[in-house]
Amino acid sequence: MTRYGKRGDMVVHEEEPFNAETGLAALAEAPVTATDAFYVRGHGAVPQIDPVAWRLHVHGAVERELDLSLETLREALPEREVTATLQCAGNRRAGLIAIRDIPGEAPWGPGATGTATWTGVALADVLALAGPHGGHVGFEGADLSPEAKPAQQFGGSIPLEKACRPEVLLAWAMNGEPLPVVHGAPLRVVVPGYIGARSVKWLERIEVRSEPWHGYFQHVVYRLLPEDGTAGPGAGMPLGLIALNSDVLSPADGETIAAGSVQVRGYAFAGGERHVTRVDVSLDAGTHWSQALLLEDLGPWAWRHWQITVELSPGDHEILVRAWDSSAATQPEDEAALWNPEGYVNNARPRIRVRAAPA
Amino acid sequence: MTRYGKRGDMVVHEEEPFNAETGLAALAEAPVTATDAFYVRGHGAVPQIDPVAWRLHVHGAVERELDLSLETLREALPEREVTATLQCAGNRRAGLIAIRDIPGEAPWGPGATGTATWTGVALADVLALAGPHGGHVGFEGADLSPEAKPAQQFGGSIPLEKACRPEVLLAWAMNGEPLPVVHGAPLRVVVPGYIGARSVKWLERIEVRSEPWHGYFQHVVYRLLPEDGTAGPGAGMPLGLIALNSDVLSPADGETIAAGSVQVRGYAFAGGERHVTRVDVSLDAGTHWSQALLLEDLGPWAWRHWQITVELSPGDHEILVRAWDSSAATQPEDEAALWNPEGYVNNARPRIRVRAAPA
Repeated sequence: MTRYGKRGDMVVHEEEPFNAETGLAALAEAPVTATDAFYVRGHGAVPQIDPVAWRLHVHGAVERELDLSLETLREALPEREVTATLQCAGNRRAGLIAIRDIPGEAPWGPGATGTATWTGVALADVLALAGPHGGHVGFEGADLSPEAKPAQQFGGSIPLEKACRPEVLLAWAMNGEPLPVVHGAPLRVVVPGYIGARSVKWLERIEVRSEPWHGYFQHVVYRLLPEDGTAGPGAGMPLGLIALNSDVLSPADGETIAAGSVQVRGYAFAGGERHVTRVDVSLDAGTHWSQALLLEDLGPWAWRHWQITVELSPGDHEILVRAWDSSAATQPEDEAALWNPEGYVNNARPRIRVRAAPA
Repeated sequence: MTRYGKRGDMVVHEEEPFNAETGLAALAEAPVTATDAFYVRGHGAVPQIDPVAWRLHVHGAVERELDLSLETLREALPEREVTATLQCAGNRRAGLIAIRDIPGEAPWGPGATGTATWTGVALADVLALAGPHGGHVGFEGADLSPEAKPAQQFGGSIPLEKACRPEVLLAWAMNGEPLPVVHGAPLRVVVPGYIGARSVKWLERIEVRSEPWHGYFQHVVYRLLPEDGTAGPGAGMPLGLIALNSDVLSPADGETIAAGSVQVRGYAFAGGERHVTRVDVSLDAGTHWSQALLLEDLGPWAWRHWQITVELSPGDHEILVRAWDSSAATQPEDEAALWNPEGYVNNARPRIRVRAAPA
């Protein structure tokens, strides 16, 4: 098994702004996702930034405002690395749309997530220079999004307690190479264990605040709305922590494969504070379960790939999966009971159907 | 609403050793459970301890061994308080037994859990005196359990990182009164967010270790075993963190009530690191959901009581509940897929059936 996957085809949901998920074959290749196949979720045009002129402005409830160049960040603070899974809140939305349509939202499959090794400085070290006094740390990118009316720069916040943890980075490199522009160069936030929307790209501004981010992308969208249609600023609950989830990467749903021994592979992620303890696979709709093998452990902030070899006789089969976390919690079964108006956090047990052809 | 509930009947599962859960009416009374109705889970006879002669022995991977009297603990260290929900790993086991029998295990209902305000010293402060070097902190009580062959004193361990958190106490008081003997006097551990089995009663010995506790009650039982019958030392996964859970406290399952406006009340707990964000109630098997009101917030380590008023026409009704946590995860639906050989961690969505009689 190679640690870094090869480039795979991406499933493009939107060309401008570019939104694409990683093809399952590329995700299955290796537990660390190839940089050029890593999913891209954007809300506006990719901004053009001169990295020499660029400064990170740190302000708000701080003792000292800061304006930091890339050079200062690199030279004044220790370099840190974390291998972390990022996951879009809309990952696996297609499973919810299959139950009831969600107009205006892209039908992301299970590839709106990926794992990379990120290099940069600890956000905690930057905050320590500023002396934070608030309870929340907000991030604003340079990307202007027309989804908000009037247009807004993308942004969001995390609690100060999380912001001060060592795994939260301001990153300039991804998988050992300079961060690609589409992934947020010159500098992006990486918040392991939180929805991807908090890992703000093209970071320009850090604002220490008494309250959570009030901008469109946290106060209006990226929220779990009740099903009764209540929407608007502050409705429902803000998303943040990532819930236990898993999916099958190979074989593909609907694929025809040769009968006999079939290797099934997928991912499972428990959010970081909790870890994946077990992945079970059933071929009989959940009556009997077999344990899959958990593959390479990339640390607490990364998913686990898993695999199992099953024997499939000629005919149609359903492969059902459930992951368990270190609280002995497992995934909900019923996607219908997870449906929500913006189609977030589908973490139902994955099931795929395959046809085994006689050898 | 009073903060402290009144005494309620207990459901006794075993007289010797005494094992009893709190009656639902007593749990429904108030979010802090009455001390004399608080559930009791014991694995051996209640030990007789002379509190004056008693010493807490701290040893293992430490710089300094300690033998501390109650007087020393009280005088040398700051007093701490935490309001925390304890929950037996077997809480709600009856729902799993209804699917497939679990011989030798008591059919605990939803009352093997309760919330109290605990007073004592921080375990972290005791450990700081000893200078711990291991990765795990083990606890041993004075109670000898014949369940292990040969008999063993009850014990268990938690990771050092958790042991050093401020919410983990060594407690001598419960709800403002001296800790009752049946709840572990003179001193018990209180580990908020972990299964009750780690909150060791009648504490005698703290052992800092490089490995988790190797005794019967952590290495053999209190484990999530696979369904294939694999058992024995080290099989399956050790339980620890508490998973998101909820249940209905009033009305009771099977109760006949007057048709019309009916107040439904229950509890929900997300384990502490995560919090309960929403509780939904459905009267039509999950097609439509209404949000319950979350009642008094007793802090991160305590459950939330919730209530909702529903209109019930004369006839039979099923009331289905799902809680959500701050990772936007909800409870699994299918109790069958949670069945495990020792019947732990039933956190399926609760459902009760009631008959509404014409007024």
